[in-house]
Amino acid sequence: MVKINENLKKIISDNSFIKVMALTNKYKKDSPNKEVISLSIGDVTIPIPEKVVDVMLDTLNKQKYSDTFKGYGSSSGYDFLKKKILENEYGNLNFTLDEIYISNGTKIDCINILELFTNDAKVLISNISYPIYLNGSLVLNKNIYTFPLKEEDNFIPQVPNNHYDIIFLCNPNNPIGNCYNYETLKKWVDYALKENAIIIYDNVYEDFIGGDLPHSIYEIENAKKVAIEFRSFSKSLSFSGIRCSYYILPNEIYPNVNELWKERTINRFNGVNYVTQVGAEAFYLDEVQDIIKGNIGYYLENAKLLRTGLLKNGFKIWGGENSPYIWVKIKENITSWQVFELYLTKLDVVVTPGIIFGNAGDKYFRVSALGKRKDIIKAIERITRYYEKNN
Amino acid sequence: MVKINENLKKIISDNSFIKVMALTNKYKKDSPNKEVISLSIGDVTIPIPEKVVDVMLDTLNKQKYSDTFKGYGSSSGYDFLKKKILENEYGNLNFTLDEIYISNGTKIDCINILELFTNDAKVLISNISYPIYLNGSLVLNKNIYTFPLKEEDNFIPQVPNNHYDIIFLCNPNNPIGNCYNYETLKKWVDYALKENAIIIYDNVYEDFIGGDLPHSIYEIENAKKVAIEFRSFSKSLSFSGIRCSYYILPNEIYPNVNELWKERTINRFNGVNYVTQVGAEAFYLDEVQDIIKGNIGYYLENAKLLRTGLLKNGFKIWGGENSPYIWVKIKENITSWQVFELYLTKLDVVVTPGIIFGNAGDKYFRVSALGKRKDIIKAIERITRYYEKNN
Repeated sequence: MVKINENLKKIISDNSFIKVMALTNKYKKDSPNKEVISLSIGDVTIPIPEKVVDVMLDTLNKQKYSDTFKGYGSSSGYDFLKKKILENEYGNLNFTLDEIYISNGTKIDCINILELFTNDAKVLISNISYPIYLNGSLVLNKNIYTFPLKEEDNFIPQVPNNHYDIIFLCNPNNPIGNCYNYETLKKWVDYALKENAIIIYDNVYEDFIGGDLPHSIYEIENAKKVAIEFRSFSKSLSFSGIRCSYYILPNEIYPNVNELWKERTINRFNGVNYVTQVGAEAFYLDEVQDIIKGNIGYYLENAKLLRTGLLKNGFKIWGGENSPYIWVKIKENITSWQVFELYLTKLDVVVTPGIIFGNAGDKYFRVSALGKRKDIIKAIERITRYYEKNN
Repeated sequence: MVKINENLKKIISDNSFIKVMALTNKYKKDSPNKEVISLSIGDVTIPIPEKVVDVMLDTLNKQKYSDTFKGYGSSSGYDFLKKKILENEYGNLNFTLDEIYISNGTKIDCINILELFTNDAKVLISNISYPIYLNGSLVLNKNIYTFPLKEEDNFIPQVPNNHYDIIFLCNPNNPIGNCYNYETLKKWVDYALKENAIIIYDNVYEDFIGGDLPHSIYEIENAKKVAIEFRSFSKSLSFSGIRCSYYILPNEIYPNVNELWKERTINRFNGVNYVTQVGAEAFYLDEVQDIIKGNIGYYLENAKLLRTGLLKNGFKIWGGENSPYIWVKIKENITSWQVFELYLTKLDVVVTPGIIFGNAGDKYFRVSALGKRKDIIKAIERITRYYEKNN
């Protein structure tokens, strides 16, 4: 038998979103009369703006006709979308069309990009992180190192003393929900510059950032030499079922890096759905931007309600101000799967056990503000009632 | 600096479709009055059937509304599409929903699937093949071996005497355009059974197969134990710009293989665009099947015209009967880039140099029947006129 890549067996499936879903569905089946509310979802609930759908409908309709039909596009995306993104997101950074890649999801590309580097490169991933970094790197047989995110540091990743080659940073952070300031990002960029390392910068929740905080890692001096930034239309444009994302691979990272990566992309990918790319372009219409701001505002208001409710109940919390996620310390002396079970069976509320994001997260759980307002309010009421009774 | 994966530099970009396009575009720019006809395209020219677009329009429109909006789907695809494909394509083969994966393109997955196996597995690729197999395997640092497809064998791949672990087979073949019979496929399946090897079976041109020829490798006894079959809606449904494909990973290949691969897929992919999957489902409507048969018939009629024209001009040819591609031996004593240049500059006709598919292909070129009828006819006229003058 051909030998199976043993690393596939190391994917942590025991502590995963799949298990959350399976346990939730089992509970729903066993208790059909209960109204279960999920604060576990990482998916959006607001539909796609009408104007965007209309533009896509028009484009899709043209696929019926010979003279407007579009077949294969560029592997790295259409120029019309690349231009629009660079203008609107990276206006003064002077990236060229060669430096941006349109794709189907950051989940795919933040791992695919590891193909750029040799397998002995030391990859650094925080213990408490989006589990894809670890599992994806495992599958590609990468040389993985982890370090814990600590409560005493407010879960802000601290620059290490040792040398690493590739660092995963997620900001605004999933699952913590906090957002790093200029100082923190500058420390990491400086580390990478000093160590000749690369930062894989997962920036998919960028639209949730407000106030005086860096929206892009490229706002930090010389970050173009060390950082690859990933963004997505999934949350902002409600494109989680439509699929469109992009990333910046700066020319300054390595001589000919884009020449190499362009060849790789041509040989491994056929580009994003054409209609989808036209839809993503419409994201930048003024009237759509207004709606998006409203939608993000809605989720952040949900987060505010969650934060207030949790604080009132005496929880220690992080995040939820520039992110749809809130990281919550478990009050009882139980594990994160136990708190998951407790809330599911006593409150009919689903939260995400912290251990899914690494064993350093086992004293915490994550709640998401991406749900519907009425559910958020109900969930807080249930939590409040429960702790009033049990305190 | 982090070390770059040196294999990226081995991707053969000198002899690529990109160079064909670049040279063609340069010629068009330099000779704006010439009417250049491409017989090089691997893309379809017939638009998507109206009924399919209508179903997609309806589904897309629903993405405006909260109660019909769809976010993240299953990483391996929606069950409604999986069921429809298994029923219609693999009716009596009893595959389960776990054994089929819906994806964005065979180009991606026929290489991704290599992640299942260790990097020391011996990968066998024919010299004269779709260049993605070689370049994709290179990027993933696989242990690659090649063997020439020979004219004396009618370019049918011969089972080797040595042991290999993974074999790429493309049938109907790109670029040769021939289609293997039961006997040939049985030899390969038997080889794989004997050697405990895996066949990566690229079957994307399946819809072009007629007559008494195997449509699927699983028609061969015990192929379920050794073959992973890949298909696509790109050519049949004109989905090359929409993106939808699928593959079968049989449970019999390895204990728990689907459990492992499902985890990998969840960790590396977020599923295909929902609207696209609904469109692919509509492929199986009776009225759509009728149109598809007509479209395939149109391309095969193009191929017949090309075959007849080339034979009349004394060319030695292969394929074009169960495939949109025809493989043509160069009559002059020149290389395949030279014949490319000759036809481009003397006939304003673009053909694909055989060397793109491996150096064993340098005495040949590929023509495609996926173009428009009037262009096919004109191209043959030009070739005929040229050889009447120059014989």
